[in-house]
Amino acid sequence: MAGDALAGYLHAQAGDFLRSLRMHSESGADTAGVAEAAAALRLAARRISGTLHTFRSLLDAAWADDLRTELSWLSATLAQEHACTSRLARLLEALSRLSGSSPLPPARGELRVLDNDAPGAPQTAQTPRAAGLTVGAARAGALLERQLTLARTRAHSAALQALGSSRFHAVADSVAVLASELPLGPMATVPAAEALARPAELAERRLLDAVAALPLGRAAHPYNAEALVHGLATAPAEEAQDSPWHQVRLLLRLHRYAQEVLHPDGDPVLGHAGLVLDRHRDAAEAAAAAATAARTPRIAPATAYALGVLHADQRHEVEAARFAFQQVWQRATAVTAP
Amino acid sequence: MAGDALAGYLHAQAGDFLRSLRMHSESGADTAGVAEAAAALRLAARRISGTLHTFRSLLDAAWADDLRTELSWLSATLAQEHACTSRLARLLEALSRLSGSSPLPPARGELRVLDNDAPGAPQTAQTPRAAGLTVGAARAGALLERQLTLARTRAHSAALQALGSSRFHAVADSVAVLASELPLGPMATVPAAEALARPAELAERRLLDAVAALPLGRAAHPYNAEALVHGLATAPAEEAQDSPWHQVRLLLRLHRYAQEVLHPDGDPVLGHAGLVLDRHRDAAEAAAAAATAARTPRIAPATAYALGVLHADQRHEVEAARFAFQQVWQRATAVTAP
Repeated sequence: MAGDALAGYLHAQAGDFLRSLRMHSESGADTAGVAEAAAALRLAARRISGTLHTFRSLLDAAWADDLRTELSWLSATLAQEHACTSRLARLLEALSRLSGSSPLPPARGELRVLDNDAPGAPQTAQTPRAAGLTVGAARAGALLERQLTLARTRAHSAALQALGSSRFHAVADSVAVLASELPLGPMATVPAAEALARPAELAERRLLDAVAALPLGRAAHPYNAEALVHGLATAPAEEAQDSPWHQVRLLLRLHRYAQEVLHPDGDPVLGHAGLVLDRHRDAAEAAAAAATAARTPRIAPATAYALGVLHADQRHEVEAARFAFQQVWQRATAVTAP
Repeated sequence: MAGDALAGYLHAQAGDFLRSLRMHSESGADTAGVAEAAAALRLAARRISGTLHTFRSLLDAAWADDLRTELSWLSATLAQEHACTSRLARLLEALSRLSGSSPLPPARGELRVLDNDAPGAPQTAQTPRAAGLTVGAARAGALLERQLTLARTRAHSAALQALGSSRFHAVADSVAVLASELPLGPMATVPAAEALARPAELAERRLLDAVAALPLGRAAHPYNAEALVHGLATAPAEEAQDSPWHQVRLLLRLHRYAQEVLHPDGDPVLGHAGLVLDRHRDAAEAAAAAATAARTPRIAPATAYALGVLHADQRHEVEAARFAFQQVWQRATAVTAP
C-alpha cells in the first residue's frame, strides 16, 4: 500500500524531529550542541513539510496543509540565527581573501604552490601577502560584524521564544501523532508503486520545467557578467534575477525528498546540485548584506569602497554557482538522457 | 641576403611612419583624423622598434639601440592620450552596464532575447531596467570623467609638445634614413633563411618561456577568484600579479612582428591572443583608475561604493581575459604540437 511506504518515511523523519528536540533541550549551555540540534530539527521539519506537500493527495489534506504551515513557520524561525552566523563568516572570510591576507583556496585539480614557485613570476618576492586587512576592509568587517551580530542576537531570541511557545508545543504534538499514526486520505489504499509514483513525477516535472526556464545557455559561458548586471542598480533588480534560481533550489529539494521516499539510497547528483544552489543563495544573501551595510549613514568612504568590492565579489560567487549548477546539470542529464 | 628581407620590412614600416606623420600634421582641426594618424604613427613606431630589438644582431647595434630608445619615448608619449580616452570610455560603459541601464552584450553563441522571454522568469516585468544611473554610479562617473579628462588634456599637451620638439625631428630624420638606407651590421651578409631565423626563434623562445611561467592551470578554471585576491590590498600587490601577463603581452608582440618579417601573411592566432592580452591590460588599468579615484579626499560613501563595485568588476574582466588567453593558447598549441 502507498500509505505504508509514506508512513515509514514520515515516521522516521518524525523520530528525527523528536530526537533533535530532546537533544536541543538537553544541550543547555553547550552552544555547539544546541546549534547541531537546531540544524537537525530544521532538516527533519523540512523533510516532513516537503513530503506532506508532494504526497498531499495521499493524506488528509486539511491536516497536511495545517501541519505544513506550522513546520514552515518553525523552520523559518530557526533558520535565521544560523543564516546570520554563516553569512558573517562568509563575508569576513571574503574580506580576508580580498585583502590577500588569507591564502586563495586551490582551484580544482591544481596545486597552488606551483604558481608561487614558478621561476618566471617576477616581483612576487617584493610584495609579500599583506599581514592584515587594509583600513577599509577592517572597518567594513567591523561594521558587518556589528550588524549581523545584532541580527543574530535578535534571531536567537526569536528562536528561543518560538521554542517555548504553545504554538511550538502544538507542532511537536502533531509530529508525535504523525510518528504513531499518519492521517491518510482515501487514495492511500492504492498500491504503492502507482500512488507514490504520480506525485513524485509531478515534483520532478515541476523541477524540470523550472530548470528549463533558467538562462543556462548564458550560465554556461564563464565570466558572462550577468550576476553583477544590477550591481549598482536597486536591490529588487538583483532579487528578481536570482529568484528563478532560488525557486529551482526549493523544487530540487522537494524532488530530492520525494525520491527519498521512493528510493531510500538518494541520488548524489541531486545532493551536489542542491549544495551548489545553496552556495548561490548564500552568496546572493551575503552580497545583499554588503549592499545594505553600505547604506549605513555616515560611514567612511574607505568602508563603502570595501563593501562595494565585497558586494561585487559575492555577486561573482553567485555567477560562479550558476556556472557550476549548469555543469552539474548538464552532466546529470547527459547521463540520464535516453 | 638577410639584410634585404629585413630592410624591406623596415622600409615599409618607415614609409607608414612618415605617411602617418604627414597625415597627422595635415589633419589640423579634424580630431578624428589626428587620432587616427597618431594611432598609425604609434603602430609603425612599435613595429620598427620591435624589429630593431629582435634583429639587433644584423644591424649596426649602437644605431639600433639609439633609435629604439627614441621610438619608445615617442610611442609612450603618444599613447597616453589614447589610453586616457579609452580607459574613460571603458569605465563609463561598465558603470552603465552595472546599473542595468545598458543591455548586457550577448554571450558567445547565445541569443540574449531567449533569457528575457523565458516563460518561467518571474518578476522581470515588475523591475524594468533602471532608466538611468543610481546616484553613486552617476557621481563615480562624474569623478572619473573629471580625473581622466584632466589626465587626457595633460597627455594631449605633452604629445603636442613632443611632436614639435627637436628630439622628435631627430627621430623622424632617423626613420627617413632607415627608409632609404638601413645601417646593417657584419652579420647581414649571411643568407636570409639562416640569419633571420635565429633571432626570430629567440623571440619565440622568450615568449614560450614567459607563457610557461604564467599560472595557466589556475586561469583555466573559471571563477578562480585570483584576479581580485588583492582587491582590497595595496595597488603594488595587484601590479605584481599582473606584470607577468603584461610581459607576455610585450613578448607576444615582438614575436608577432618577427614573424611578419619572415612570413608577411601573419598568424591570426597570435593576433587574437594579442587582443586578449590588450583587454587584460586595459581592464587592469581601468581597475587601478577606479581604485585611485576612490582615494580622492571627501568623496561621498555612495561614490566610493560604486567605485569599489567598478574596481571588482574590472578585476573580473582581468580574470576573464586570462581565462580567454588560456583558451586561445591551448587551442593554438594543440594545433601546432607535434
